Amino acid sequence: MKIPSTSHVHMLSYLVVLLLLPLLSFAADPDSLQDFCVADLSASISVNGFPCKPASEVTSDDFFFDGLTKVGDTSNIFGSNVTGGNVLTFPALNTLGISMNRVDFAPGGVNPPHSHPRATESGVIIEGKLLVGFVTTGNVYHSKVLTAGQMFVIPKGLVHFQKNVGVGKALTIAAFNSQLPGAVVLPFTLFASTPSIPDDVLTRAFQVEEKVVQSIRSKFSS
Amino acid sequence: MKIPSTSHVHMLSYLVVLLLLPLLSFAADPDSLQDFCVADLSASISVNGFPCKPASEVTSDDFFFDGLTKVGDTSNIFGSNVTGGNVLTFPALNTLGISMNRVDFAPGGVNPPHSHPRATESGVIIEGKLLVGFVTTGNVYHSKVLTAGQMFVIPKGLVHFQKNVGVGKALTIAAFNSQLPGAVVLPFTLFASTPSIPDDVLTRAFQVEEKVVQSIRSKFSS
Amino acid sequence: MKIPSTSHVHMLSYLVVLLLLPLLSFAADPDSLQDFCVADLSASISVNGFPCKPASEVTSDDFFFDGLTKVGDTSNIFGSNVTGGNVLTFPALNTLGISMNRVDFAPGGVNPPHSHPRATESGVIIEGKLLVGFVTTGNVYHSKVLTAGQMFVIPKGLVHFQKNVGVGKALTIAAFNSQLPGAVVLPFTLFASTPSIPDDVLTRAFQVEEKVVQSIRSKFSS
Amino acid sequence: MKIPSTSHVHMLSYLVVLLLLPLLSFAADPDSLQDFCVADLSASISVNGFPCKPASEVTSDDFFFDGLTKVGDTSNIFGSNVTGGNVLTFPALNTLGISMNRVDFAPGGVNPPHSHPRATESGVIIEGKLLVGFVTTGNVYHSKVLTAGQMFVIPKGLVHFQKNVGVGKALTIAAFNSQLPGAVVLPFTLFASTPSIPDDVLTRAFQVEEKVVQSIRSKFSS
Amino acid sequence: MKIPSTSHVHMLSYLVVLLLLPLLSFAADPDSLQDFCVADLSASISVNGFPCKPASEVTSDDFFFDGLTKVGDTSNIFGSNVTGGNVLTFPALNTLGISMNRVDFAPGGVNPPHSHPRATESGVIIEGKLLVGFVTTGNVYHSKVLTAGQMFVIPKGLVHFQKNVGVGKALTIAAFNSQLPGAVVLPFTLFASTPSIPDDVLTRAFQVEEKVVQSIRSKFSS
Amino acid sequence: MKIPSTSHVHMLSYLVVLLLLPLLSFAADPDSLQDFCVADLSASISVNGFPCKPASEVTSDDFFFDGLTKVGDTSNIFGSNVTGGNVLTFPALNTLGISMNRVDFAPGGVNPPHSHPRATESGVIIEGKLLVGFVTTGNVYHSKVLTAGQMFVIPKGLVHFQKNVGVGKALTIAAFNSQLPGAVVLPFTLFASTPSIPDDVLTRAFQVEEKVVQSIRSKFSS
Repeated sequence: MKIPSTSHVHMLSYLVVLLLLPLLSFAADPDSLQDFCVADLSASISVNGFPCKPASEVTSDDFFFDGLTKVGDTSNIFGSNVTGGNVLTFPALNTLGISMNRVDFAPGGVNPPHSHPRATESGVIIEGKLLVGFVTTGNVYHSKVLTAGQMFVIPKGLVHFQKNVGVGKALTIAAFNSQLPGAVVLPFTLFASTPSIPDDVLTRAFQVEEKVVQSIRSKFSS
Repeated sequence: MKIPSTSHVHMLSYLVVLLLLPLLSFAADPDSLQDFCVADLSASISVNGFPCKPASEVTSDDFFFDGLTKVGDTSNIFGSNVTGGNVLTFPALNTLGISMNRVDFAPGGVNPPHSHPRATESGVIIEGKLLVGFVTTGNVYHSKVLTAGQMFVIPKGLVHFQKNVGVGKALTIAAFNSQLPGAVVLPFTLFASTPSIPDDVLTRAFQVEEKVVQSIRSKFSS
Repeated sequence: MKIPSTSHVHMLSYLVVLLLLPLLSFAADPDSLQDFCVADLSASISVNGFPCKPASEVTSDDFFFDGLTKVGDTSNIFGSNVTGGNVLTFPALNTLGISMNRVDFAPGGVNPPHSHPRATESGVIIEGKLLVGFVTTGNVYHSKVLTAGQMFVIPKGLVHFQKNVGVGKALTIAAFNSQLPGAVVLPFTLFASTPSIPDDVLTRAFQVEEKVVQSIRSKFSS
Repeated sequence: MKIPSTSHVHMLSYLVVLLLLPLLSFAADPDSLQDFCVADLSASISVNGFPCKPASEVTSDDFFFDGLTKVGDTSNIFGSNVTGGNVLTFPALNTLGISMNRVDFAPGGVNPPHSHPRATESGVIIEGKLLVGFVTTGNVYHSKVLTAGQMFVIPKGLVHFQKNVGVGKALTIAAFNSQLPGAVVLPFTLFASTPSIPDDVLTRAFQVEEKVVQSIRSKFSS
Repeated sequence: MKIPSTSHVHMLSYLVVLLLLPLLSFAADPDSLQDFCVADLSASISVNGFPCKPASEVTSDDFFFDGLTKVGDTSNIFGSNVTGGNVLTFPALNTLGISMNRVDFAPGGVNPPHSHPRATESGVIIEGKLLVGFVTTGNVYHSKVLTAGQMFVIPKGLVHFQKNVGVGKALTIAAFNSQLPGAVVLPFTLFASTPSIPDDVLTRAFQVEEKVVQSIRSKFSS
Repeated sequence: MKIPSTSHVHMLSYLVVLLLLPLLSFAADPDSLQDFCVADLSASISVNGFPCKPASEVTSDDFFFDGLTKVGDTSNIFGSNVTGGNVLTFPALNTLGISMNRVDFAPGGVNPPHSHPRATESGVIIEGKLLVGFVTTGNVYHSKVLTAGQMFVIPKGLVHFQKNVGVGKALTIAAFNSQLPGAVVLPFTLFASTPSIPDDVLTRAFQVEEKVVQSIRSKFSS
């Protein structure tokens, strides 16, 4: 399959978004021990989650976030873009156990199979027509085509994806019961890790020849 | 203040939505012990949360919900309407620790001061112009006027409200880290409970005369 | 209703107690990761809860607290006084998920309607005769008049109050499943926040005229 | 040490109290998924905790408990008596994560070394003079003599005891962050289990001769 | 790649083990509300986890399990076999938040890339020489070759695998902080679900041609 | 019972292992808020658990541990030795909620009665023949003699022990749902604390004469 040379760049910008997003992975977060603990992302010490910005420096603006107002750039190999409203971009979410994303899709765009290590995801379709599917640990595939206003839920930790099956672009707002749900994006996890998972592990696991593994890996190399 | 006679009905329909919504109240929900446990709302036995529908009866449709597609009826005394996408309306959320609401506002409409006993709320404005405010346990009021795409967070258990300050109607999609966040809606809690909180408790607490308490109560009587 | 000019001072001293108490609000606290982590209330860094005092500086005295031995001053507008045995006054409670208060009541005194954002409260009447009531999220009011030795429970996050209905003073010992339960004290939350909740929000929510809101607010202004 | 023959009976009645108390053992309890779930202690099905009594059968009286009003009978070998206000005696505590006990002491009475498998204990002395002590997992013994109004905390799972060191009787009200804290009462656990822990295990563990083990066991045999 | 016709059968037997294993998926399990709640796997009602076997029917044998004594059959396409000591095979683990597996490897055998939706895994090599690797959500691959007695940890929800890189067979004992960790086994999740994930989703996600997807799928079809 | 004079030294070395082990005690640990947070055991600040080593300094070696490869020295008064694979020795376990121990037994060796304040223990016998027993909070003793491959579970917080009842040495691998389970080792807790539990408390609790208490204590004095 031919990829325009520019697409590596696009893929990378997509990867950047995904890498920002999944630095953490979650379950039900520990409960907050105060009204709020706005994250100090540049604290000198690192703890489970983030230390709190001094309460004296917290203002009303800390509790509101503009980052989801912009349409995401879908000109990448997947034709989709995730914009994260999580503790890394919206520090007030620290200790509060919730986050939200906007996901934009070009026509035919796919949010590739991935899992959120410790968060259940729920979402509402705002625009367009999306196929939403997930696979249980019992390997049962559940899916449905949704349009504006319809809601879905993806049980915690299961592999799922969305595909824009409409004629125009699509948009969904997703919520997670975690301040940073994390994302194990399978194409990257399996074929774009640093260093690489050994070829013989992947050939045995997926029952393919080495050249298939190398071909897929080349698509994600940067 | 004069209320058209029909408005009691509206207030009641509003109350019905609110009563459906808040039967449960939450913190971070206990973790799920299987991929899913679709609620059996009519089970003969009652447990913490709900028993599970037999796995053999679960279909893909269980994981998708249409209830948030309809615009809520805002012709009530508050000029707002909450439609809940929680375990009571979307049983697949049982044990998954998340839920979402749509809140519609008529021009000038208010989602009155309330708290979610054990859930943090986060939301995104989809349409219109909303004033979103909350008060900390230290009695500091934080607020901001938000427009489409902007996100807010209300720390767990704090009193908050929204008011449509735009010229047209408004809509927000809210998420909760709980399968049913519950709502303590202060006008109803204080002045419309059954039976009533004794007048002398309210007069002492709010430093008003008994006739003020009775006047407020009359507005919510049905 | 006339308030002696000195009462503002009393109300303030009452407010001080309440403000000390509710700086944090809770659910079931995260579990402790060591036998104890005595709070270092003056640590340079702020985290969820508090950092630990160095173990080498911990002594037996850290695990015992004298603060509840004193009768609280009930000469304020409510005729009641809350003394908190929580992490802010008894640092050894940090990470241990429990706290206790003593609440003193003058004859007729009221502990005004409030909620603990994330803690269930349980208590025992030590002296006197108290009306204890709470309202569910379904707006059902439950109450009973209790005397010495009787125990009550207030489900997590619900609005509740106590009123001394005996001839003499009253005293109760309350426990919370949180190191600092937090308190949303409704008269202060609604009418004494800084800055104020806009009048039009309160008039619409409580269906009263603006002058009623301003009159109540004046009782709590300092 | 000579024990009057009647004391076995007393020891047993003491044991009965303790056996009622510790049927369950806890950590921070899972969060409640509704305002309340009053335990149905006689349900046909057994779940983690208890099923809920049908909401339609719940009355205000369910939320209040008289059991702690009575002075406990301290005429047993320990000279102390624990009265439990936990889910087994006060079913409304089910899912609410808290419980309270009253502990009565005769002069010189001891609440023998025990641990609560998953609950932190906190308490206030109501009457008398008590030595309260606990041992950390690092084998450090912390203790203090407390009088009326003083508060103590026993970190989760640690071995602790109380002894009445005053001239009269003593009373304490204890709270636990669990609906049923459970109690591992060491004299009974080690020497009064059914069947018995093998003698050779105890002789090796405590470095004593078999006759010492048998002598202690005889004191607790019934 | 040629697969002996018998291998489908082997693959299936492997699949059976895996399907038994992953019916549930977890985070930190909710805390137990009693000493134990031995699962009643054949209860008429289904709840989060399992109802408890009546305490009167519990015997000492319930707390001990023989299933890990047998060497697993590694004659399948992966050359490895997982034997689960989880709540489905060892019912006493219900509500206790832990489980253990034995994993047997033929020379060259691979436990294919998979994740445990809500459990951290830790393990000790008992025999042989294993390459153990995992990929973070930031797509960093961590690995090491381990021999008898060495211990590894796989953070919750991350994709990991083991490969026998020694000359003989290998064995590891793994532990999970969950009564049933669940497993998302990627070859099966992506290519052997029922029904299948649409080809166009997989071709877009992995940047391969449809025939590659169909070829892989054929290896896992049964 | 005669103890060779050198045994005090052995007992101490045994004590050292045990003291390293139980500095912390647990329940279900709070959930991790990132993929990993390798403990910085020498951080200047102390928090619940440990601060994280800077992510930039984390290497693959951090996730693997060699400490369980060595046979423990069982030449002490108990004839057993616990080697801990917990956060204090394997810092990568920080925030991950799991740990593992190896326990070696000389013929006839006993791992004395102890409890893990907040962790359930599960284990597999690797070599030899062990009697494994525990006592419920209802004082029921459950036990069984296990051989290689058999698995046991000890409910959270209950007193348990193991004794080598085979002719040769024995080895078990135990797992805990906690990064550091903590251990309340009863002979040390009751008779070797610093300072000592008062004699009169122990004589009353165990119904023995003071000279018995002093005799036992002398066996553990160092």
